[in-house]
Amino acid sequence: MKMMDINKAFTLIEPGPVVLITTNDGVKNNIMTISWTMVVDFTPKFAITTGAWNYSYKALKEFKECVIAIPTAEQIDQVIGIGTSSGRDINKFENFGFTPEKAKNVNAPLIKECLANIECKVIDIIKKHDIIILEGIAAYFNSSRKNKQTIHAVGDGTFVIDGRKISRKKAMQSKLEGII
Amino acid sequence: MKMMDINKAFTLIEPGPVVLITTNDGVKNNIMTISWTMVVDFTPKFAITTGAWNYSYKALKEFKECVIAIPTAEQIDQVIGIGTSSGRDINKFENFGFTPEKAKNVNAPLIKECLANIECKVIDIIKKHDIIILEGIAAYFNSSRKNKQTIHAVGDGTFVIDGRKISRKKAMQSKLEGII
Repeated sequence: MKMMDINKAFTLIEPGPVVLITTNDGVKNNIMTISWTMVVDFTPKFAITTGAWNYSYKALKEFKECVIAIPTAEQIDQVIGIGTSSGRDINKFENFGFTPEKAKNVNAPLIKECLANIECKVIDIIKKHDIIILEGIAAYFNSSRKNKQTIHAVGDGTFVIDGRKISRKKAMQSKLEGII
Repeated sequence: MKMMDINKAFTLIEPGPVVLITTNDGVKNNIMTISWTMVVDFTPKFAITTGAWNYSYKALKEFKECVIAIPTAEQIDQVIGIGTSSGRDINKFENFGFTPEKAKNVNAPLIKECLANIECKVIDIIKKHDIIILEGIAAYFNSSRKNKQTIHAVGDGTFVIDGRKISRKKAMQSKLEGII
């Protein structure tokens, strides 16, 4: 996993993949699966929807740090296992065969086996809508991974895997200048 | 286009497709392209990131209504055209060959050629983060459309089209009960 330009990290979230979010509550690491995310700023800033019903919420609120990790298609069953169990009961890293790796700026761990990781600080909590605002401060990408297809949750128990990629860089030029 | 269960409308946004958002400012219809969206509630509620830099923002803020339309892969060049031009200068429906259709509960129009449309009310504006919270109140799906592949923007001028669909309904059962 190599560091990537933090100004390009929004491109990991903009396509709308299912993500894993790691936290550390001072004692142990945890992971949750989240599909409700969006970019709010190129710097980057992200919004995620979560609340007290998630065990990870307490660690997010108290320690104000997390890592967003991007899993790929072949990790779908780990992603679902993580999303349908609680860190209250099990150690999700051990249980689902993921390896925590030390991050540079936060105590929440990177996930070694994921395609990408973004270290984040919690910069705001909009309690009224259960939205947490994150600022990405360091990002990593595993370019040696053969399969880079990410997973999109539909929300009804089905998932869509990334298909063909097409470029419209020329048509988009006016929007991309100064951003990427 | 047939009405769909409003409680299932979150499944149109959860996978993270590029969407078109229509508004009506009391005089004319407009469309903008947005990729920064997320579900915040199953009822459904959605968050979108936009601000005064978008011409549509004024209509959203004043009339507190819009329609989220979901375009498909073969509409990508219309989507990009809409995203790189302004309703200040042109009539985007005419210019990009889309047909406005009367919605039931809002003055913003549906887009006839899109795969799905969700009529929405603006229920909150979080100015600090340029986030608008929408409540979906009616939804339509065009099941007769042969190609239902949606578009995911990467943010660097490239796009990923929906690939294969896989089901994990059984493994997700505990999460889906009472929701869908």
